Amino acid sequence: MPMFMDVHHGMTGITEEQLKAAHQADLSIEGEEGVHFQQAWADPESGTVYCLSSAPSREAVQKIHERTGHPADEVHPVPLVV
Amino acid sequence: MPMFMDVHHGMTGITEEQLKAAHQADLSIEGEEGVHFQQAWADPESGTVYCLSSAPSREAVQKIHERTGHPADEVHPVPLVV
Repeated sequence: MPMFMDVHHGMTGITEEQLKAAHQADLSIEGEEGVHFQQAWADPESGTVYCLSSAPSREAVQKIHERTGHPADEVHPVPLVV
Repeated sequence: MPMFMDVHHGMTGITEEQLKAAHQADLSIEGEEGVHFQQAWADPESGTVYCLSSAPSREAVQKIHERTGHPADEVHPVPLVV
């Protein structure tokens, strides 16, 4: 399954609880698009959130993020991993 | 140990071999700054590379990347992980 790294900007001040809640919302419906969000990292200072997922397509990743109310600003396929 | 996500732009067309070589170069000297690069993901299409590390500081991450010839364009502390 292809891997994707998506990026959210403008999340300045995001808390651990908010990150967990957003991730949990994604997990609760991700299966409907064949997506699995594996991990997410947040920098509250710059307001940047990175989400790593496996998914059938970029559009599938974005569809889940949109349905849970936090569309990504960028969704990058990352076919190379070390 | 604090976690960091650093980002490299302008790596359009990067190959698996190049990503592995860059990561290996970082791994070979990371200990000198107390850094550990855990994983890296590349999108050859947009030329973006993401590196996840644990390190004592943002400066330590950048110092290793500079010494191996590929300074990061952004180094974000990511204290929140889910």
